[in-house]
Amino acid sequence: MLIVMQSQASDDKIKKVIDFIRQKGFDAHVSKGEDHTVIGAVGKKVIDKRDIELLDGVKEVIRISSPYKLVSRVFKPEDTVIQVKDVKFGGGHIGMIAGPCTVESYDQMDATAEKLSKCGVKVLRGGAFKPRTSPYAFQGLGEEGLKILREVADKYNMAVTSEVMEVSQIPMFLKYVDILQVGARNMQNFNLLKSLGEIRKPVLLKRGLSATIEEWLMSAEYLMAGGNREIIFCERGIRTFERMTRNTLDISAIPVVQKISHLPIVVDPSHATGLRDKVAPMSKAAVAAGADGLIIEVHNTPETALCDGAQSLYPEEFSDLFGELKMLASVIKKQF
Amino acid sequence: MLIVMQSQASDDKIKKVIDFIRQKGFDAHVSKGEDHTVIGAVGKKVIDKRDIELLDGVKEVIRISSPYKLVSRVFKPEDTVIQVKDVKFGGGHIGMIAGPCTVESYDQMDATAEKLSKCGVKVLRGGAFKPRTSPYAFQGLGEEGLKILREVADKYNMAVTSEVMEVSQIPMFLKYVDILQVGARNMQNFNLLKSLGEIRKPVLLKRGLSATIEEWLMSAEYLMAGGNREIIFCERGIRTFERMTRNTLDISAIPVVQKISHLPIVVDPSHATGLRDKVAPMSKAAVAAGADGLIIEVHNTPETALCDGAQSLYPEEFSDLFGELKMLASVIKKQF
Amino acid sequence: MLIVMQSQASDDKIKKVIDFIRQKGFDAHVSKGEDHTVIGAVGKKVIDKRDIELLDGVKEVIRISSPYKLVSRVFKPEDTVIQVKDVKFGGGHIGMIAGPCTVESYDQMDATAEKLSKCGVKVLRGGAFKPRTSPYAFQGLGEEGLKILREVADKYNMAVTSEVMEVSQIPMFLKYVDILQVGARNMQNFNLLKSLGEIRKPVLLKRGLSATIEEWLMSAEYLMAGGNREIIFCERGIRTFERMTRNTLDISAIPVVQKISHLPIVVDPSHATGLRDKVAPMSKAAVAAGADGLIIEVHNTPETALCDGAQSLYPEEFSDLFGELKMLASVIKKQF
Amino acid sequence: MLIVMQSQASDDKIKKVIDFIRQKGFDAHVSKGEDHTVIGAVGKKVIDKRDIELLDGVKEVIRISSPYKLVSRVFKPEDTVIQVKDVKFGGGHIGMIAGPCTVESYDQMDATAEKLSKCGVKVLRGGAFKPRTSPYAFQGLGEEGLKILREVADKYNMAVTSEVMEVSQIPMFLKYVDILQVGARNMQNFNLLKSLGEIRKPVLLKRGLSATIEEWLMSAEYLMAGGNREIIFCERGIRTFERMTRNTLDISAIPVVQKISHLPIVVDPSHATGLRDKVAPMSKAAVAAGADGLIIEVHNTPETALCDGAQSLYPEEFSDLFGELKMLASVIKKQF
Repeated sequence: MLIVMQSQASDDKIKKVIDFIRQKGFDAHVSKGEDHTVIGAVGKKVIDKRDIELLDGVKEVIRISSPYKLVSRVFKPEDTVIQVKDVKFGGGHIGMIAGPCTVESYDQMDATAEKLSKCGVKVLRGGAFKPRTSPYAFQGLGEEGLKILREVADKYNMAVTSEVMEVSQIPMFLKYVDILQVGARNMQNFNLLKSLGEIRKPVLLKRGLSATIEEWLMSAEYLMAGGNREIIFCERGIRTFERMTRNTLDISAIPVVQKISHLPIVVDPSHATGLRDKVAPMSKAAVAAGADGLIIEVHNTPETALCDGAQSLYPEEFSDLFGELKMLASVIKKQF
Repeated sequence: MLIVMQSQASDDKIKKVIDFIRQKGFDAHVSKGEDHTVIGAVGKKVIDKRDIELLDGVKEVIRISSPYKLVSRVFKPEDTVIQVKDVKFGGGHIGMIAGPCTVESYDQMDATAEKLSKCGVKVLRGGAFKPRTSPYAFQGLGEEGLKILREVADKYNMAVTSEVMEVSQIPMFLKYVDILQVGARNMQNFNLLKSLGEIRKPVLLKRGLSATIEEWLMSAEYLMAGGNREIIFCERGIRTFERMTRNTLDISAIPVVQKISHLPIVVDPSHATGLRDKVAPMSKAAVAAGADGLIIEVHNTPETALCDGAQSLYPEEFSDLFGELKMLASVIKKQF
Repeated sequence: MLIVMQSQASDDKIKKVIDFIRQKGFDAHVSKGEDHTVIGAVGKKVIDKRDIELLDGVKEVIRISSPYKLVSRVFKPEDTVIQVKDVKFGGGHIGMIAGPCTVESYDQMDATAEKLSKCGVKVLRGGAFKPRTSPYAFQGLGEEGLKILREVADKYNMAVTSEVMEVSQIPMFLKYVDILQVGARNMQNFNLLKSLGEIRKPVLLKRGLSATIEEWLMSAEYLMAGGNREIIFCERGIRTFERMTRNTLDISAIPVVQKISHLPIVVDPSHATGLRDKVAPMSKAAVAAGADGLIIEVHNTPETALCDGAQSLYPEEFSDLFGELKMLASVIKKQF
Repeated sequence: MLIVMQSQASDDKIKKVIDFIRQKGFDAHVSKGEDHTVIGAVGKKVIDKRDIELLDGVKEVIRISSPYKLVSRVFKPEDTVIQVKDVKFGGGHIGMIAGPCTVESYDQMDATAEKLSKCGVKVLRGGAFKPRTSPYAFQGLGEEGLKILREVADKYNMAVTSEVMEVSQIPMFLKYVDILQVGARNMQNFNLLKSLGEIRKPVLLKRGLSATIEEWLMSAEYLMAGGNREIIFCERGIRTFERMTRNTLDISAIPVVQKISHLPIVVDPSHATGLRDKVAPMSKAAVAAGADGLIIEVHNTPETALCDGAQSLYPEEFSDLFGELKMLASVIKKQF
């Protein structure tokens, strides 16, 4: 931690700052610059930097160690590759996850999964518990939805992922699901993160609607601090003032996260844009920018979907898109 | 719901839209304008407006009924006044809540509460379970903290409020706490909201960091839909690109919410700004703008606080501020 | 324009609204729904919709005609292709613009242009007048810079683009420059837009830091309303709360703009991210998403650049990137 | 400038960084911490910190001197009080500016000014050149508007303020206007700022829609660097994702700016909220938070206004509000 003193700070004020940080358990290293004296506070203690900023004569306090550790490439330089069945995320492998927004019935899931499976998709998505902004909207089939998801996936030899919303639901999810999703609204539900840190299945962690990348990394740190080593980041759009898309997909988060962290990052173009005709261009952008995977909404008959049909692709559209994505991936020397 | 057709939309396209919405259970009323045909879809069904926007020839679909009902003044025109002990929020009454960020020890709470009580504060705040962005930061005393809070409050005949983070904690909170807080990060933790809808104690619902007012109203709708009628909104700053304050306190949310909803709204200037010297001006602004209450961090010795000391007032500062606030309130014909 | 009345609005209130809009020169068409009466106001007059929203009993007023006309595909359905020398932007053609942030000297421009020209770049960029947030920073070489830019470009048979900041500079720019740039900070400098509407050279219009796409389209409308038909949009990142990149490049703006407007849209990954190692992934993303062009900062020796060297590519990096971009373009059936 | 090296940075890398900054004209002071070596770069040169961040082994570069100088309280500790006629802004004085959005006619201005003058308003506002997002909207009366403004103001012994949009308009404005306004969209029109730095009349500088406070201070620095010492900041709302108000009025900007700068800050609640019924609560909030002035839209007959009638107060509403504001001001020991 570096403490920058105001340009006119007296020796007395400097001394008081040094006394304060020593009393808090830090060593102090002073260096006098042309305009500003800078005090380096060295130590392992945790301190709220604003406590120092309030001292007389202090201009600014700068934290220099990163708050995240286990998620960082300093801790683990090489890519973490997460494998589910024979699909890999990370290390040059792009994983494809597809399926409807919501599990509606066995027939819907079966028809959709059959077509996806033929395209070569190995991981099936589908919501059983739905976070809805209105208490009056359809809230999902619950455990029945998870059962259907599992049954259909087994039929086509696929893995499954679904969103878990509550600590008490975790044991149920462990019975049915291969990758547990944490939704954007729960990215900082710290109790949920702590509990998911204790399981030994991959967690797909969506970025919060207004979360900074640093906060997102810290949420993954919660999971890793609990011992879970298989975390997949999922960029799904951030809230901005732009109203023509539901959210603004932050494609630049891909190279930013990949530089800092060894964990894979996938992109959800369906929720980010909220519009079917924007899913294909944004999927291509994500692959070209180096994403380690995609999670795309596909529905057998989107016009009858109970939820988010407007952003779901038809199976045929998806099939064409997947073909193009494979060609783009080969240009940048990656593979699905 | 109004469906605006594109200016060149053919009769055939208009007919297909009408067929579609009838099939979905709506009546259709057509009116032809100079440029655009508008179709009114009348009915009680729920439909994703994007499903219609994807139909050929449709320019835009506009929802005209508000998604919130119970929280609205249409449902209940007069102010809801929430009383806890002899403190009232709403209907011309401004309620004051004060106390430290975190319950650290009996002595700290006792010393702080004694001074606050002398100032006339009747509701004591203090966190027992702390939502922290880092898994390595102090997470609160847990149930022990709630016990201390209750014990100290009883000694000075005060009510207490504290943040609940998890469904499973609710029974414990009901034993100790008079107002249950939902934190900004849990504003859309829908499972928590549903469970809190079933209790019969007031809930203080903080606005999410990037929540729109409409989403905030919908979260309150969850609580009211469960049967809980005592909801207090709490504006605590939204995330913007400005970096000189922790968040941007949206003072205009006060008159906006008060016009739409009958529920009271209080303001938390401490978390919004994150800086002690900004708490007084923002508290005054909130009262002048018509807030129904304030929740202010006060610590007996902020420089030793385990959490957020930098934004906590000294008891003497608080006492002076409370005096000024009472004078401001009387100018706008309200009272603490 | 549609006027939605409150659910309990009396006939008297409805009548007053109708009288008001008739008096303003509109026809009124009334349709009664289950909950809400909706009044369609038909006419060519301009009215501030808030004036109606303030009338008693009005719930909401909804504008249904788009504010932009000439830039829209309703006005001109087919792509506008803008050609400068033998480079095309739009209609399946991707134009490449490259060069340093700032014109520093003849030698710098000559060395950079020589290498770019060898890669096949036909349009050279370089700032002569620089918009700097600090009055103490280097403000550019002025007209001397434009002269150098022109001279070097002619040597290698290239076209040039540079940013114009002021109405009074336009005649000077017309002497030297093939495409006039409007910077993000001037996107709503309406006097500048009006004057640029009167010239007959292409204008590259950058999106403002916090501009919505609709506002951006309206700024282009200013240019087209003046008679200039050659407008190129340039997405260069919007301001969000994310701090790890300078701005957030809104890749989804590409398909959104292309659907609404016939004008081409290019992407500036250098200013958006502010970081050299993010330029390549974001350039690839832009091409994959369907951009009609790129504008990339390249400097012969970035480590000595007077401005933005940190986001400038080395010529060799650029050359490799350009090769990859061409392959990506062919996958999506476009060409440079 | 402080350069924080990565935790594993080798001595060789540290040496290369030191060589680099010395070559750029800085002195280097090295201090080794437990985790990180920190290099202090001391000198007067200007350098883009990203140039250093790109060097091997560098974790982060931190600028420690503020980019603004003349606007800062370090340069001038005591409040700057700006006086126009007998109205003062700053130093405990709150200045009131009022009038219609736009000058429409002599009669409109005369009727409005008469009433405002009776309430004690001494500075009249009114737009003659209007920045409009649509080229098809009313653009103002131009010089004729300024003449009317001056004539009416002289009749009631008032000062006037109006928005200047272009360098070439400045001489005309100097003939008619006492305070020149720079609009939000021109806050970073640096050519305009430079020219206004050379005049010797007060400038009211509005905050840009998405400007940070630091950028706003830098725009004022442009004005002061040119020699103009009379700058008034004007907070008028920033763009956020909230849609129920036009912008989000950042009341906390008042104490933030007042702490850093000696210049006065006024608030424009009319443009910030865009709604008449929000103007009173936000005006009160601004005064209570310590604003040095207000600029409020008042129109003799808002329902006939050509522009922004929906946010203009009736003269009677304004009169009542002004009375309440004076009482609030006295509570916080300030005066109009």
